[in-house]
Amino acid sequence: MLRTVDDVKNQLKSFVDGLTGTPEKMADKKYQMDKKVGTLKYTDLYPHDRNGAVVTETMLKQLTDVLIDFVHETNDRKCKVLDFQHPEEMKKLLDLDIPEEGLPLQTLIDDCALTLKYQVRTGHPHFFNQLSCGLDLVSMAGEWLTATANTNMFTYEIAPVFILMESVVLAKMREIIGWNGGDSILAPGGSISNLYAFLAARHHMFPNYKEKGQAALGAQLVMFTSDQCHYSVKSCAAVCGLGTDNCVEVPSDEQGRMIVSELERLVKERKAKGQIPFFVNCTSGTTVLGAFDPINPIADICQKYNMWLHIDAAWGGGLLLSKKYRHPRFSGVERADSVTWNPHKLMGTLLQCSTIHFKLDGLLLSCNQMSADYLFMQDKLYDIKYDTGDKVIQCGRHNDIFKLWLQFRAKGLNGFEAHMDHLMEMAEYLVERIRTEKDKFHLILEPECVNVSFWYIPKRLRTMPHNQNRIAELAKICPILKARMMEAGTMMVGYQPDDKRPNFFRSIFSSAAVQKDDVDFMLNEMDRLGQDL
Amino acid sequence: MLRTVDDVKNQLKSFVDGLTGTPEKMADKKYQMDKKVGTLKYTDLYPHDRNGAVVTETMLKQLTDVLIDFVHETNDRKCKVLDFQHPEEMKKLLDLDIPEEGLPLQTLIDDCALTLKYQVRTGHPHFFNQLSCGLDLVSMAGEWLTATANTNMFTYEIAPVFILMESVVLAKMREIIGWNGGDSILAPGGSISNLYAFLAARHHMFPNYKEKGQAALGAQLVMFTSDQCHYSVKSCAAVCGLGTDNCVEVPSDEQGRMIVSELERLVKERKAKGQIPFFVNCTSGTTVLGAFDPINPIADICQKYNMWLHIDAAWGGGLLLSKKYRHPRFSGVERADSVTWNPHKLMGTLLQCSTIHFKLDGLLLSCNQMSADYLFMQDKLYDIKYDTGDKVIQCGRHNDIFKLWLQFRAKGLNGFEAHMDHLMEMAEYLVERIRTEKDKFHLILEPECVNVSFWYIPKRLRTMPHNQNRIAELAKICPILKARMMEAGTMMVGYQPDDKRPNFFRSIFSSAAVQKDDVDFMLNEMDRLGQDL
Repeated sequence: MLRTVDDVKNQLKSFVDGLTGTPEKMADKKYQMDKKVGTLKYTDLYPHDRNGAVVTETMLKQLTDVLIDFVHETNDRKCKVLDFQHPEEMKKLLDLDIPEEGLPLQTLIDDCALTLKYQVRTGHPHFFNQLSCGLDLVSMAGEWLTATANTNMFTYEIAPVFILMESVVLAKMREIIGWNGGDSILAPGGSISNLYAFLAARHHMFPNYKEKGQAALGAQLVMFTSDQCHYSVKSCAAVCGLGTDNCVEVPSDEQGRMIVSELERLVKERKAKGQIPFFVNCTSGTTVLGAFDPINPIADICQKYNMWLHIDAAWGGGLLLSKKYRHPRFSGVERADSVTWNPHKLMGTLLQCSTIHFKLDGLLLSCNQMSADYLFMQDKLYDIKYDTGDKVIQCGRHNDIFKLWLQFRAKGLNGFEAHMDHLMEMAEYLVERIRTEKDKFHLILEPECVNVSFWYIPKRLRTMPHNQNRIAELAKICPILKARMMEAGTMMVGYQPDDKRPNFFRSIFSSAAVQKDDVDFMLNEMDRLGQDL
Repeated sequence: MLRTVDDVKNQLKSFVDGLTGTPEKMADKKYQMDKKVGTLKYTDLYPHDRNGAVVTETMLKQLTDVLIDFVHETNDRKCKVLDFQHPEEMKKLLDLDIPEEGLPLQTLIDDCALTLKYQVRTGHPHFFNQLSCGLDLVSMAGEWLTATANTNMFTYEIAPVFILMESVVLAKMREIIGWNGGDSILAPGGSISNLYAFLAARHHMFPNYKEKGQAALGAQLVMFTSDQCHYSVKSCAAVCGLGTDNCVEVPSDEQGRMIVSELERLVKERKAKGQIPFFVNCTSGTTVLGAFDPINPIADICQKYNMWLHIDAAWGGGLLLSKKYRHPRFSGVERADSVTWNPHKLMGTLLQCSTIHFKLDGLLLSCNQMSADYLFMQDKLYDIKYDTGDKVIQCGRHNDIFKLWLQFRAKGLNGFEAHMDHLMEMAEYLVERIRTEKDKFHLILEPECVNVSFWYIPKRLRTMPHNQNRIAELAKICPILKARMMEAGTMMVGYQPDDKRPNFFRSIFSSAAVQKDDVDFMLNEMDRLGQDL
């Protein structure tokens, strides 16, 4: 039984004596040494055992060593990105069972190590697969604290510091958008943020809708978005009772940007049917191509036809922080009525961290307020304007602010700007490399964001003219080459079809870990794995 | 610059040499000693510095010490629950500013310590304030790992182990409910879980609604819930376009349970108007009183009138794990079409962890599927039935499973059962104590859950007969006594009015930390702070 300070002291001393070699070896040693919580169980921890101080501390430090090992591996270019196993194989490698009797703490630590062994290292410099890549260690530190503080964001009463942090950070983000005042909230992901925008728009324009529903209106409400938008916009129409048929997809141009004349034509078409166009979603950074819909012309149409302008900058929002890349992409953003912006994408904040901003103050509250007496009493000790719970459609709300606030403190506005510029430079470098190696790679379009879309060309297709036949062949290669990457475990790059072309690769730069030699590695590794295809 | 293994070695050795006294003192020493990341900045960490191993490790360990200090304090009955400050005062005590240039790592560590100093210790044994209390250290360890793994739950591709864990844990929970098969998902809180139930019900009963919206139906949809239900049910009606007028509140009895004859009467009334009653929400554990609506009689009505039966057991769900307390509260639960159950409440899982379960498999997918080509490709390397992303209304989804899975491993089913029984025993003990000290306390009703509702009686009112006049006086005392608790910082117990009575205290037992002497403390402390009121 590990109960006294002396036990810990001896343990630590023998650990220090044993330290030799590289930091990596240190980590290993520590892990071996610490296998001392052994047969102890959760009942030996706080709060079950009031004297659980040492066991609790030992367990947490043992865990921390496992986590730090994972951080080392994630940042080690010699380590693999993943150890791929098919689901049925994976089940055999793990013990996922829920037991009748609880297991010893040591088994839990082993569970943690095994879980991380088979987890994809999304922060590895060779993970180019998702809009959220990277492992920002300051944000991670913030999330450890968030877990430890384990509170709920609905009232100042139980989250005083975090509530104030929300107010400071969200006000700064609105200022960056270009607004004075307004209101914002953090939501569990961009889809829910977009839902908030839709709800606020409907409530603002048709205040009876909250009580009466569709019966408050004689006519059908209609919303508009480009055919490249994120699928959550359409989901919104289903959830809110409009029906997806009343979420009109506006065609986009070759670059993936909404065609504004088509928007106007479709608005007129729906109006002619007696319907009520009320909401336009403008995407700033589409999911696949990274395209930016032209804000100013869309804002003109919204003004002309009295429609709410929402900007879904879940993906592209981070570029608001860069003087170099903000324009022309975000020119006119201040004309929007609402903006979704996910720090958990380009800004590298840990999942989840999504924000929704409104130009008008007071709308979130009047739209979502249900006035629960038991939480939002009017006779509290403090100024209740700080209670946010009645503004949201959740009740309990996870603390997503601390990790973002801490990042802002660490990087400052200048550091975030440098981060954005670095990501864009990596995308530009890849484009340049693809252009140079044009026998092996085919660039699909000049990117506006950090999404780079291209085909890999294996040896047998390098001399073939680039026509529909070749494209069909190149598309067939994508899933095979992706499977080879995953089986080799050396890197991950996503692929998908879109409405204009079959499968192609889309590489994402949203991790601060990626440097030029990682971009070189990506191309070389694709060629190594795929040249015989 | 702290870069070499020797530096760390020397640091650790001097730390070990300095160890004397209690574990608490150890923590202090470590924190002082480790103030060595000093003027280093985030650019000295991974991944910005490829050789950032030692700085990264030092920073994380320094942070861990700060966090462990907070864990010690949370579990120390001599420490306060909170150090209350009014918002404007709090702003002066903190530096929340977002700087132009990033701050040193040491400042961030200090920020963390200061944040925790002013954070309410929701895991303290004298925090009785919220449905989510406690700091389960195994769950917390799980959340640290979750942060470190930083992945997204939409595909097996990037969250293989976690996706399998979801499938194992959710299947076990459905088994506990009493179902074979079915489907489930984790959602960001009970409100969104309830929203899922509503959407699935609407889609199942009116499959055209997804595309056509309200236009798919000739008549108005109507839902029913008790007047004691959680406010998210009403919010659901607003969000989904029914309108809150079409969420009918069924009266409840003195215990706070839905009156089933009233439900039937109201269903008939709405049908007579040509409307379509389609959804009944049955609350298992109301927020304020902890009442359980009678499931079997409600299920009979649902069967008779062809309505979906949803059980909102966000709060009471944990009692499904206890043989002793499950019946009669949950008798008939297997007849439900859907069940919300929040492990982040009675089960002590860290926020957020909410689950929604369906008897029918396939419904989540057909209801919410938007078929995003770029994520849910059909030509993947692995069996894509494991991709969950197309079943949800979020796109990205936080990993809420690991911390729950790890708790199940630690406690086993028996440990969770013991936890539930302990919480109920604490509530029973409080009721018994209140009965004994009936000059000082007035029990409002015999609780069915761990919510204990009562008034505190100051000296001047102890001999007054218990009538409306006394109740009015007792109610006025609640906010004042609560304010005194917060200013003293010694404990927190919530109060609120409900529809039948003015302000009263509602004590919650959902923390494993609470023992009988803590219950005694609560009553003594209320009397100490309030007897002169």
